Amino acid sequence: MSAGSTRAVRVGVLGAGVVGSQVVRLLIEQADELTARVGATLELAAVAVRRPERHADIPAALLTTDAAAVVADPEIDVVVEVIGGIEPTKDLLLTALNRGAGVVTANKALLAEHGPQLYQAADAAGADLYYEAAVAGAIPLIRPLRESLAGDRIQRIMGIVNGTTNFILSAMVESGMGYQEALAEATRLGYAEADPTADVDGFDAAAKAAILASIGFHTRVGASDVYREGIAAVSAADIAAAREIGCTVKLLAICERVPGPDGSPGGDAVSARVHPVMMPTSHPLATVDGAYNAVYVEAEAAGRLMFYGPGAGGAPTASAVLGDLVAVARNRVAGGRGPRESSYAALPILPMGDVLAKYHISLDVDDKAGVLAAVATAFADAGVSISTVRQEGRGDDARLVVVTHSAPDAALASTVRRLADLDSVRAVTSVMRVTGDMR
Amino acid sequence: MSAGSTRAVRVGVLGAGVVGSQVVRLLIEQADELTARVGATLELAAVAVRRPERHADIPAALLTTDAAAVVADPEIDVVVEVIGGIEPTKDLLLTALNRGAGVVTANKALLAEHGPQLYQAADAAGADLYYEAAVAGAIPLIRPLRESLAGDRIQRIMGIVNGTTNFILSAMVESGMGYQEALAEATRLGYAEADPTADVDGFDAAAKAAILASIGFHTRVGASDVYREGIAAVSAADIAAAREIGCTVKLLAICERVPGPDGSPGGDAVSARVHPVMMPTSHPLATVDGAYNAVYVEAEAAGRLMFYGPGAGGAPTASAVLGDLVAVARNRVAGGRGPRESSYAALPILPMGDVLAKYHISLDVDDKAGVLAAVATAFADAGVSISTVRQEGRGDDARLVVVTHSAPDAALASTVRRLADLDSVRAVTSVMRVTGDMR
Repeated sequence: MSAGSTRAVRVGVLGAGVVGSQVVRLLIEQADELTARVGATLELAAVAVRRPERHADIPAALLTTDAAAVVADPEIDVVVEVIGGIEPTKDLLLTALNRGAGVVTANKALLAEHGPQLYQAADAAGADLYYEAAVAGAIPLIRPLRESLAGDRIQRIMGIVNGTTNFILSAMVESGMGYQEALAEATRLGYAEADPTADVDGFDAAAKAAILASIGFHTRVGASDVYREGIAAVSAADIAAAREIGCTVKLLAICERVPGPDGSPGGDAVSARVHPVMMPTSHPLATVDGAYNAVYVEAEAAGRLMFYGPGAGGAPTASAVLGDLVAVARNRVAGGRGPRESSYAALPILPMGDVLAKYHISLDVDDKAGVLAAVATAFADAGVSISTVRQEGRGDDARLVVVTHSAPDAALASTVRRLADLDSVRAVTSVMRVTGDMR
Repeated sequence: MSAGSTRAVRVGVLGAGVVGSQVVRLLIEQADELTARVGATLELAAVAVRRPERHADIPAALLTTDAAAVVADPEIDVVVEVIGGIEPTKDLLLTALNRGAGVVTANKALLAEHGPQLYQAADAAGADLYYEAAVAGAIPLIRPLRESLAGDRIQRIMGIVNGTTNFILSAMVESGMGYQEALAEATRLGYAEADPTADVDGFDAAAKAAILASIGFHTRVGASDVYREGIAAVSAADIAAAREIGCTVKLLAICERVPGPDGSPGGDAVSARVHPVMMPTSHPLATVDGAYNAVYVEAEAAGRLMFYGPGAGGAPTASAVLGDLVAVARNRVAGGRGPRESSYAALPILPMGDVLAKYHISLDVDDKAGVLAAVATAFADAGVSISTVRQEGRGDDARLVVVTHSAPDAALASTVRRLADLDSVRAVTSVMRVTGDMR
């Protein structure tokens, strides 16, 4: 296992589940190619698992149940972490980083909650911390954002970064089925976990939004800084209402650099949020269906870019992990290291209430004169300008459909509450933010 | 211009045309941000131009007409080349690399023809050679291919990498106009140059194909290794014929790793080619219209990825150049360097005649019994299997439309020649390769 005069780079893998087993398989199968690309032998030295008897496909000599020993082993140069979770994973990775080992992780939750602490440990020891697989599976995204666009000013990142919710929403759009039915279908087909909370309530997407905003805007955004609404409240009526205005419904992670009141970059703030939106079917993200992911980036000089591919799955995620592993190993062979955390901008977080948004609102109303005037007054009182209003149906089916101009989210939310209290409004049947340029 | 204890990274720019002027503008405007990202002052030290009097927007003290002095100046750490052309550009960059300066270039023709020589000079001196802007403008592509996917096996790269030809073909599809008319429109709007040869004859796309194939397959592919057909022969009849089978027409750069007869990776060959294709409108590349670029990548573990964005233009290309510049400057500050050329695979080039292709062929034929039999026999004699055949029209308008199964390109081409010689075939009106899975 020697590559001439260059010492082998020894790798310890933590976890051999869906992703880890693919990482191990590819490390073994492609050993010769990886060695040629690194410039030194990439040697798989240990695989830490909970139950070794379940991993007959992995050479027994590599298996261990002692993850703590793997991260502490001075002979291990790079630790690949694919077990997930916060504890004890965080302490395991800090142990590895503190002694100067490189770390490759796919753990978005850990990075979104404790990224700064991990980065600090990496910096202090001069170690690499790579995590391409943490966002959007196999899609190269972290590297393009933090390296390719390092000479540009990113203005906005909008992504479909959760395959489970995209599958559910796609199914609702295609079949007209309701949320519960689509969720059951996703569970049956293996696209949703038994407990789908992390996906459908937007926690997974929020962690990714925190990572994307941090990298894209050179600042620190944690999971708790991300405004979050899931898809459980999205109804078949919402989907139908979106279709009527040439839109589809997607759960987006949106990260924006918002100019301050005086327009100077020093006054900028950052908004990171996850919520369902109605978006025009002409938008490149609108056609991203099923379990695929895509991220749309707007930068000052580069213009509009999109990255598309499989957002999850063992082999695709393993591809991202191995790309990072080759980079970290190359850096060790060359005696250098990759880009560090870049958080110099230190931008404040814009509260959700201050974010400018457009709303689509459907109301069941009494079919009588004066209803439109009452509704319009409620908007005007809140300082919210109406873009379009459509009256539909008669009698018991009378409806008003309103799309607003941009206004602070807090003003829009309070308007919706006031509408619900109007005597002539029988029910607010659909409320959703609208994104993209409407035709 | 000092960044504390760290010495500034001094940059010399060669050329201040469409791209260069944007590079210079952004370097000056974003100096503080770039410095924060590099970890040292990024100092614009010189801009070499032919006619300084035309560049009133650039500080006069930076302008020089002596490019040779800039590349030889030991005080210049990184040379940014955006003048294009082969000579004297090659010698200028070799001078810079030989003395250990980093080089960032957008020069696809130079890289496709003399890449190995430049890489060798970079390696010998331990210098960085970056060229993200050479392919697909602002779209991060080189870095994802050579770094993010370094742990995967890329199987195929298919790209719309020339905005001029994509604009012309999009115009033909949308309006039904002919090639000459669409070319005139593109020229009028500034999407085609006065001499459009490099674009419409596929030279530009071929240079990019050579670069993509070299990086993607860890081998050396030069511009002359790329099979090349332009779009000048694409007719309104071809576009109409494509539409009839649910396709659109695109000029694609296609790079494939083709398994050898024994199936072992050691027997693989590489095919790089540029030619128009009929592709299903359901394919993600089919909807990439106008001057946009997109590249579709299939990798063994990652699956199908797509990268989309502006393929040309001053600011987008400058964004890619500056991303590279930040990377090279960071590497200098950290004392390391980026990935070198990786050409260990040394794959042979598969001749175009051996590439497996499907053809779409339209024939004007005599409206009499036996024509189909004669045509089918011509295919059978060449060992080419027919997928679908459609008879259309009567009398003088009688036509046969044939789509073949996969066969060696040489067999298909010779079949077309033999069809043209058949007594019952009055004219071969459309011949084009078909790509993607047909519905």
